[in-house]
Amino acid sequence: MKPSVARKLMSVALGKSPANLILRGGDVLDVYTGEVLKGWSVAVSGERIAYVGPDPVHTIGPRTEIIDTSGRLVIPGFIDAHSHIFNFYGDVSDFVASATLSGTTCVMTEATELFTSLGFEAIDELTAFAAGQPLRIYFAAPSTTTLCPSANARALSPRYLNRLLRRPNIHGLGESYWSFVLRHEPRVLRQMTAAARAGKTVEGHSAGASGLKLQAYLASGVNDCHEPINAEEALERARLGIYVLLRRGDVRNELPAMAALVGRGISLRRFCLVSDGVNPKHLKDAGYMDATVQEAIDRGFNPVDAIRMATLNPAEYFGLDRDLGGIAPGHYADILVVPGPRRVKPEMVIFNGQLATRDGALVNPARRHIYSERVRHGVPLPRAFTPADFAIRAPADGKINVRIIHQVTPLVTREDVLEMVPVSGELKLDPSAGLLKAAVIDRAAWPGKYFTAFIRGWGLQKGAFAISATWDMVGITVIGADEGDMAFAVNRLRETQGGAVVVAGGNILAELSLPVNGYLCELPSSEVVAKLREIQHALDGLGAPYADPQLTAVTLSSCSIPYLRLCESGLMDIRNHRLVGLFPELS
Amino acid sequence: MKPSVARKLMSVALGKSPANLILRGGDVLDVYTGEVLKGWSVAVSGERIAYVGPDPVHTIGPRTEIIDTSGRLVIPGFIDAHSHIFNFYGDVSDFVASATLSGTTCVMTEATELFTSLGFEAIDELTAFAAGQPLRIYFAAPSTTTLCPSANARALSPRYLNRLLRRPNIHGLGESYWSFVLRHEPRVLRQMTAAARAGKTVEGHSAGASGLKLQAYLASGVNDCHEPINAEEALERARLGIYVLLRRGDVRNELPAMAALVGRGISLRRFCLVSDGVNPKHLKDAGYMDATVQEAIDRGFNPVDAIRMATLNPAEYFGLDRDLGGIAPGHYADILVVPGPRRVKPEMVIFNGQLATRDGALVNPARRHIYSERVRHGVPLPRAFTPADFAIRAPADGKINVRIIHQVTPLVTREDVLEMVPVSGELKLDPSAGLLKAAVIDRAAWPGKYFTAFIRGWGLQKGAFAISATWDMVGITVIGADEGDMAFAVNRLRETQGGAVVVAGGNILAELSLPVNGYLCELPSSEVVAKLREIQHALDGLGAPYADPQLTAVTLSSCSIPYLRLCESGLMDIRNHRLVGLFPELS
Repeated sequence: MKPSVARKLMSVALGKSPANLILRGGDVLDVYTGEVLKGWSVAVSGERIAYVGPDPVHTIGPRTEIIDTSGRLVIPGFIDAHSHIFNFYGDVSDFVASATLSGTTCVMTEATELFTSLGFEAIDELTAFAAGQPLRIYFAAPSTTTLCPSANARALSPRYLNRLLRRPNIHGLGESYWSFVLRHEPRVLRQMTAAARAGKTVEGHSAGASGLKLQAYLASGVNDCHEPINAEEALERARLGIYVLLRRGDVRNELPAMAALVGRGISLRRFCLVSDGVNPKHLKDAGYMDATVQEAIDRGFNPVDAIRMATLNPAEYFGLDRDLGGIAPGHYADILVVPGPRRVKPEMVIFNGQLATRDGALVNPARRHIYSERVRHGVPLPRAFTPADFAIRAPADGKINVRIIHQVTPLVTREDVLEMVPVSGELKLDPSAGLLKAAVIDRAAWPGKYFTAFIRGWGLQKGAFAISATWDMVGITVIGADEGDMAFAVNRLRETQGGAVVVAGGNILAELSLPVNGYLCELPSSEVVAKLREIQHALDGLGAPYADPQLTAVTLSSCSIPYLRLCESGLMDIRNHRLVGLFPELS
Repeated sequence: MKPSVARKLMSVALGKSPANLILRGGDVLDVYTGEVLKGWSVAVSGERIAYVGPDPVHTIGPRTEIIDTSGRLVIPGFIDAHSHIFNFYGDVSDFVASATLSGTTCVMTEATELFTSLGFEAIDELTAFAAGQPLRIYFAAPSTTTLCPSANARALSPRYLNRLLRRPNIHGLGESYWSFVLRHEPRVLRQMTAAARAGKTVEGHSAGASGLKLQAYLASGVNDCHEPINAEEALERARLGIYVLLRRGDVRNELPAMAALVGRGISLRRFCLVSDGVNPKHLKDAGYMDATVQEAIDRGFNPVDAIRMATLNPAEYFGLDRDLGGIAPGHYADILVVPGPRRVKPEMVIFNGQLATRDGALVNPARRHIYSERVRHGVPLPRAFTPADFAIRAPADGKINVRIIHQVTPLVTREDVLEMVPVSGELKLDPSAGLLKAAVIDRAAWPGKYFTAFIRGWGLQKGAFAISATWDMVGITVIGADEGDMAFAVNRLRETQGGAVVVAGGNILAELSLPVNGYLCELPSSEVVAKLREIQHALDGLGAPYADPQLTAVTLSSCSIPYLRLCESGLMDIRNHRLVGLFPELS
């Protein structure tokens, strides 16, 4: 803090200047000692806390706002230690509003796709986005761990990474998938070194790793993982010294399985509760950080442990515990008033010393960020697509083995090999046999470059689904039972400059426009939820079996999930860490 | 870590390269989860740990050294989170050797006096000192919180402070006494801001503060305190969010009183065990970090908590927990083998991947640092002192009130006012009435500048005691019953370029030379202990009542202890935060 702020806080603490705000006479959860301090008060001056103790009378002036918190518990604001707020689909201002209502006063977020689109200049958009919001936002510099050439072509140079790491609102290096680190990807290892030297975090992603591979990955200097899906995976990671981030968000909810950690005498000081990203539907159905902490308590975690997992623990992890994560003199006044240790839905949220919510409603409407023009033209495809663009030519006459993406769960794919016979030199899809096509089109490094493959598991009997919110690269994923509909869907996204669209027989069945960077819109969340539901219903009607078909589609371009994924330059063979073509005999 | 190190560690973890060293089959204390992992092993490659788990067989190569740790507990190396290793008197190499034998693999130390002597260039001496030692040493940049003008004249400029804070071996800003912060000393507040901005620690010193003053002090952004002397003071600080450093060193041992913290359900995650400095006598009598952790255990602290207070907790506090403080892949291999959770005297110490001790003995002799010439001429007094130099002239004829330093305990002084009558215009000491003289002479900013005052409490019937190891400023303190002996003692230190000397009637009764910066010598600790004992006996014989007369003498120049202290420019009135002269009516 500045000397002038320190002087003011000291003056208030000593009773020489009045506080702006006092929370009086409730109980205060002391996350440091683990005690509930009965009848304590908190006095706030400007953005920070000046006094925490039994009697704040010396800090009261004629204009001091005094809030009676008797019978209530005062706790620190929640921190989401790992998120992806720019994958929200909806208006991120709506996310911010929901986050504030849920008592979230700080979010650590990835912003990979924005950096892939804008390069280093993304930091200006991000900083402008975060300014004046009722919560603190810290961003990860992307490590760009992918086999996708278009994304790698847009990865930040070491020079720009080092510049980013000097920014106070960059908390560290974003999640670096373990298979890339284990393959000794030179750029990633250098990025990790740079982040550690800057004293910043190195986020991990060790989904499915265990035993020696996990040991090797963590030996590289990774600091956390948000991917354990059961108590044993969580415990294996915690024992090896990293922070374990327990996820409850739109991708998965790990808390039911993590209840098995309770009652085993395991210290949870290096565990955090995180979302790993939420979308409007998840927010509506499952809530955000207050609901996450509540679920942890309801599943048997000690309430102090549960609250610490969303306050002190993440603050310590990110080296922010001198300012955040606890209620103490000199810290930012990010404070929640909740019913008690076992009921943590906030009745009041104080952010940066100001009342942000009262009686469960925002005090001020959410600030709507005006996105810059540079992120409003996210689909710069040089030409329209035609059905013929998605034809797959056989390399020779006669039977040939073809690699097929088999979507075996909503997230996991595997590689199948299918013997196919060309018809007029072309390999055809066959919806009746479950054989569809998928293509990924780049829209950042080399706009319009694309690759088409076969996919099974989606079950579409006709039509196509295209979406521009691809993970880990900036592109369009299109899945279809018909090349004409695939082209139509992609061309529709070219028209709207981003979105998700379900088409069949040349008609739009359902659609959500995402004109901001191809990832976001500026519609209210309720409309986004309705449109996502329409998309799901339309895809249900076409035969897709997924509860969250967008998620299944956008993860197709990510190397974070095994085993065979797709990008503009080919198939990504995760297990063998290489780009491959359609024909095993040829690549 | 460098990418090449990460690659090597991963290779070892995966069994593709052999480990250098394996600790096999003991129990491993997991400070993260709090578990003792039975029959686990640790594999080390180079400086770091590659693998921690139940079976290291895949890391064994033909030249791997395997140490059987069965029946033993493997724990992280100890960290002393607050020390003053350059106030050791003896050869600091001996300190290092004792520290290593005690399992201390990291020390955070102040180096105020070296910076006051050398300015910014002290960092070169410190860095050279630390290089190649069998423990990591981090230094604090001094805040120079004192009323002493000569020390303030040598305080680091903001520019140099910022340069220092960028050094990885500078852990933060050194202890800033609370009264200076509460007085809004502009330089100190700016220094604190700079340290916090650099992401580094701001060390506190809130001796005796409580209630509103403590709240105000902590609101300024201070991060720790090593001064609580009972459980209530410790708890008051812990609740307010700072790290509480429990001291056991040559100044005090707080652990007997801190046992009252046990059994109250208080989380100790933000408590650390520290020395606040040791001298050779303390090391010999009371031991160092292993003895401190052992005493904590013996006084009832949970052994896992006690060990964490000297491992994980300080590592987290200093933001070093990605490298230190626990046994985990990727961390430095700073490891102790101890008998078990309740007996922590190390049988073996591994530092930076190498065996440092075996069977309680050093593997390699301590490296002796060759101090540079610039710290070998620490007493540059321009001329010899004469008895008349210590005369005190009365400002007028007749009775006059005079400020007297009253040494009421070995550390605390108070201000007495005595009505005195000049004799031939001079105010005289009176050993038979307990009235002696004390002078402090600067030897850094303005060598030879001095101030003489009266002191009572020391009890000398004759002779004088001079010592150059003054706290918080670089000077000489001399206390005497005779001005001739005072001059003789000071001149002797001018001859030896630093030390402690007891004289009487023009004879040297006992002496320890401290030719390095006036603070240190290069004698073995056993000789230093003997000489300190001779000094004490000599002072006993002259009538001084103190068990550690050096400490009483050197703290006379420090503003860290109330109430009336002495520097080259006058008396320092701590309570009123001002420099005063001898005569209350005149200043």
